[in-house]
Amino acid sequence: MSKIVRVNMITKGVKLEDVPDNYKGLGGRGFTSTVVATEVDPLCHPLGKENKLVVAPGLLGGTPCPNSGRTSFGAKSPLTGTIKETNVGGTLGANLADLQIVGIVVEGEAEDDKSYTLVVNKDGATLESAEELKNNLVYDAVKKLQAKYGKNVSIACIGPAGEAKMATANISVTDIDGIPTRQAGRGGLGAVMGSKGLKAIVVDDAGAPGVEIKDKKAFNNAAEVFTDVLQKAPITSETLPLYGTDILINILNEAGGLPTRNFSSGRFEMANNIGGETMRETILKRKGNPTHPCMPGCIIKCSNAYKLEDGTEVTGGFEYESIWALGANCGIGDLDTIAQLNRLCDDIGVDTIETGDTIAVAMEAGVIPFGDGKGAINLLKEVEKGSPLGKIIGSGATCLGKVYGVTRVPQVKGQGMPAYEPRAVKGTGVTFATSPMGTDHTAGYAVAVEILGCGGTADPLDPKGKADLSKTFQIVTAAVDCTGLCLFIAFGTLVDERGVPAIVAMLNAQYGLSLTGDDVTELGKKVLQTEWDFNRRAGFTKEDDRLPLFMIKEKLPPHNTVFDVPIKDIDGVHEL
Amino acid sequence: MSKIVRVNMITKGVKLEDVPDNYKGLGGRGFTSTVVATEVDPLCHPLGKENKLVVAPGLLGGTPCPNSGRTSFGAKSPLTGTIKETNVGGTLGANLADLQIVGIVVEGEAEDDKSYTLVVNKDGATLESAEELKNNLVYDAVKKLQAKYGKNVSIACIGPAGEAKMATANISVTDIDGIPTRQAGRGGLGAVMGSKGLKAIVVDDAGAPGVEIKDKKAFNNAAEVFTDVLQKAPITSETLPLYGTDILINILNEAGGLPTRNFSSGRFEMANNIGGETMRETILKRKGNPTHPCMPGCIIKCSNAYKLEDGTEVTGGFEYESIWALGANCGIGDLDTIAQLNRLCDDIGVDTIETGDTIAVAMEAGVIPFGDGKGAINLLKEVEKGSPLGKIIGSGATCLGKVYGVTRVPQVKGQGMPAYEPRAVKGTGVTFATSPMGTDHTAGYAVAVEILGCGGTADPLDPKGKADLSKTFQIVTAAVDCTGLCLFIAFGTLVDERGVPAIVAMLNAQYGLSLTGDDVTELGKKVLQTEWDFNRRAGFTKEDDRLPLFMIKEKLPPHNTVFDVPIKDIDGVHEL
Repeated sequence: MSKIVRVNMITKGVKLEDVPDNYKGLGGRGFTSTVVATEVDPLCHPLGKENKLVVAPGLLGGTPCPNSGRTSFGAKSPLTGTIKETNVGGTLGANLADLQIVGIVVEGEAEDDKSYTLVVNKDGATLESAEELKNNLVYDAVKKLQAKYGKNVSIACIGPAGEAKMATANISVTDIDGIPTRQAGRGGLGAVMGSKGLKAIVVDDAGAPGVEIKDKKAFNNAAEVFTDVLQKAPITSETLPLYGTDILINILNEAGGLPTRNFSSGRFEMANNIGGETMRETILKRKGNPTHPCMPGCIIKCSNAYKLEDGTEVTGGFEYESIWALGANCGIGDLDTIAQLNRLCDDIGVDTIETGDTIAVAMEAGVIPFGDGKGAINLLKEVEKGSPLGKIIGSGATCLGKVYGVTRVPQVKGQGMPAYEPRAVKGTGVTFATSPMGTDHTAGYAVAVEILGCGGTADPLDPKGKADLSKTFQIVTAAVDCTGLCLFIAFGTLVDERGVPAIVAMLNAQYGLSLTGDDVTELGKKVLQTEWDFNRRAGFTKEDDRLPLFMIKEKLPPHNTVFDVPIKDIDGVHEL
Repeated sequence: MSKIVRVNMITKGVKLEDVPDNYKGLGGRGFTSTVVATEVDPLCHPLGKENKLVVAPGLLGGTPCPNSGRTSFGAKSPLTGTIKETNVGGTLGANLADLQIVGIVVEGEAEDDKSYTLVVNKDGATLESAEELKNNLVYDAVKKLQAKYGKNVSIACIGPAGEAKMATANISVTDIDGIPTRQAGRGGLGAVMGSKGLKAIVVDDAGAPGVEIKDKKAFNNAAEVFTDVLQKAPITSETLPLYGTDILINILNEAGGLPTRNFSSGRFEMANNIGGETMRETILKRKGNPTHPCMPGCIIKCSNAYKLEDGTEVTGGFEYESIWALGANCGIGDLDTIAQLNRLCDDIGVDTIETGDTIAVAMEAGVIPFGDGKGAINLLKEVEKGSPLGKIIGSGATCLGKVYGVTRVPQVKGQGMPAYEPRAVKGTGVTFATSPMGTDHTAGYAVAVEILGCGGTADPLDPKGKADLSKTFQIVTAAVDCTGLCLFIAFGTLVDERGVPAIVAMLNAQYGLSLTGDDVTELGKKVLQTEWDFNRRAGFTKEDDRLPLFMIKEKLPPHNTVFDVPIKDIDGVHEL
């Protein structure tokens, strides 16, 4: 029997509720965004007791469907002021689903200034003291939690940044090996968790009833087809397992769309030093693991474990976005330095994308020079210490730009940009402009078509048709984000027409429904409308759906192009 | 023949232009807001080359009309992102008017990273190097400028904060004694001036043609009546000359509306130590000047010069707002400490209101304790140094709240609140919510009726009718801000029905017009509509016209009231 765990951090009351009618049938982002839009005052302070942190597995979480275990976190974002959903791999989603938990809603705030762990298991849910974890780095905190609650639990945990309510704070989630390499990174939801006095969520699915599936046979048939789709598609079966997401460094660099030195060029002269090919070679030479699944049932295995020359396993889940943000965007061309920066971000608990953007803006402001890896490491140590400079860095690129008077800040709605130059990958630029959550590459990954030629082709420099391309991707993504599926399954479904029907068939088999592909599209639209409506009530307008002026006026090398998708097209994204 | 001085900081081109038709008949705020709304892209970065700094005397500037010499500065604000006008006393406005300069428009930015002085005199206008003034404190810079350009020039100057483009940076203007005691404080327009590489504007009216007045006799007759109005009204003829604006400390404290310790109470137990009565006594004891005019033709003389015990003349223009912000709001109850803080703000070039708000939020965050005067002085020295902590303080209360994760930030649209508690002076709360420029007491000084009983009475705690009261004040103020008149003339015109007709008669006599009182109201409405329209195009909505949630939920002692003016009433302010 599905339940919602509702936690009040003021009264310390924890209860298991039946799922009310208006939340029935929702999962993942559909659940988090609906709860936030329904229960949170859009004008509240994101770090105040009126905000809520919502956690939810996807609709297919915990099932035999491959790559379906992602977990969504939702709240009003302290970084953007918009509604925010950020989803993450690891084992948390499947474990929640096994316990038949549809979602966790954390309310109130830590009026007693103490730290707590929410423990969820087959007997229910309780709040326990986490005073001994205060200001612990994430890796340390996770080890202590595993010592206390067992090796096999799933953990979501914040670092010192989240406890200090920094707007770049993420929420770390443990992977299949119990290591917190998975980051619910964007939008500062770690700060929301910190404002509530919640250091960690521990989920133990020992003795859990498991997910109910109405028609197991039909489900397994569809899951088998879906597996075959992923195992046949070149990106999911070859590229990603071999090189991980970091393969994109050289691809984007070649396309002139790899943002370099605070978005002042689309090419980085040291790209190959930090690209996926070099990374794989380096990992193999050092006897690390270049091919690693983050969740049970993952058959794509794009993750990895990265060792330094001396054999120290410094970081894992070492991804394209992080390597770009802390590398090319800061003019840093050395993988070992970037790996150390990545580990510091994961340990302190800050989003690598936002942190890379922020350090690059600090470099533009002259705080340290571009390319200064040691300086960047020192800046992160300031974040850990919580010094004034560290607090500025921890507040994100927009805030740092304000404090230092920098006009070239690559952001929309206050969230720093991911690793695609809008002037060179224009459909993705539209996603950055119009996503309900500020710049977010996963919200509408037009890159697939524009750069990877997956599911079609389109000239990335041509503004024509790019708003519609972004819109299509945003709708589909919003639906995928409800299922708990890893977005990378799109590299299968975009090239194999059996993919989407297999997903629909699994949903129908699990819940006893008779959905069609159109219903999935409608679900995506409904999620987007819910999110846009929250933002409208929070005071956002189409004028907030604009890239910064410098991207419209300043020509980007090497193609010397500006972002020129017509405003009319951009505003059309909202017409569903 | 009236001219506009147009300055391009990229080309260093300076030209005198005829006034185009669409700017004809505009003065002060009417001029600055119309130019900004017409020429500046509402979505531009406030510190980028697309923003413009506009300077304008009022329509009655430079005439024999008493108290008519105020100067308006306008731009898109780096603090709020809205359109901004901030006006200031001193001699600048009259001198510009004497030279028949309707306005100065400064465009572009300091691409060469050098400092300049704009010199305006009877021969025209030129840009001259100000490299020797770089990072000079305001008082030092003004002395050097007077040594170079003569004792009798008017000077507008920014401090190190403006040069560092801090969002709280003001523009200082010299008074009748050549001392930079007058501050165009709000909205961070000093940062806009700094972003353009303009350290100072020097205006020399020697040999100026003077203001043209079409019907001198009629003008003088009306001016005489107007003078009589001001000389008969109790506030302008007795209270303000005797005690200055600081008389309001005890009045607001009595009313329970003196925001104390970051807006957590409406009463300050040390109010009397810092009130106008104590200040007058202290100044007289130390042989200072308690009654000083800031501009030629001022007959109210609310300014002063304040000495420390050892006789050092530490500050001047020591006003209620500054004494409240740096005093009661920070829990500091010692006038000498506050005077030193005031001088530091004026010298570094930051707005005292925003700085007091920011220090109080820093105190709430635990950076220093409430009441720590020495700590506050040290924080300002950090601003002067430009350290990371100083840069945060210099970025204003909203930014500091973001960096330190503070939820109780008294602001609207990113601008910190002045010295009236919205929960205890509710009409003024409506002004804070709805002014086009963020919280601004001068934009609609309902306090006059609510607290001073001037021009009517209304229970300050009663939400009823307060939106209309604020609206009326906002319309009239927008008109007054076009004339160059000091807002304090309202204490005359509100109690003497000869006041407004005298102003209209002066305008008619000067320009050969036949305006009525209704035309003045229409002018005020037009200015507001121009400003609101800019903001709408910049992405602001009615959801931005909201006080922070804590003022709606948290009861304020001693009256234990919340801000409860209905949303419908607040939104009605926009219906003109």
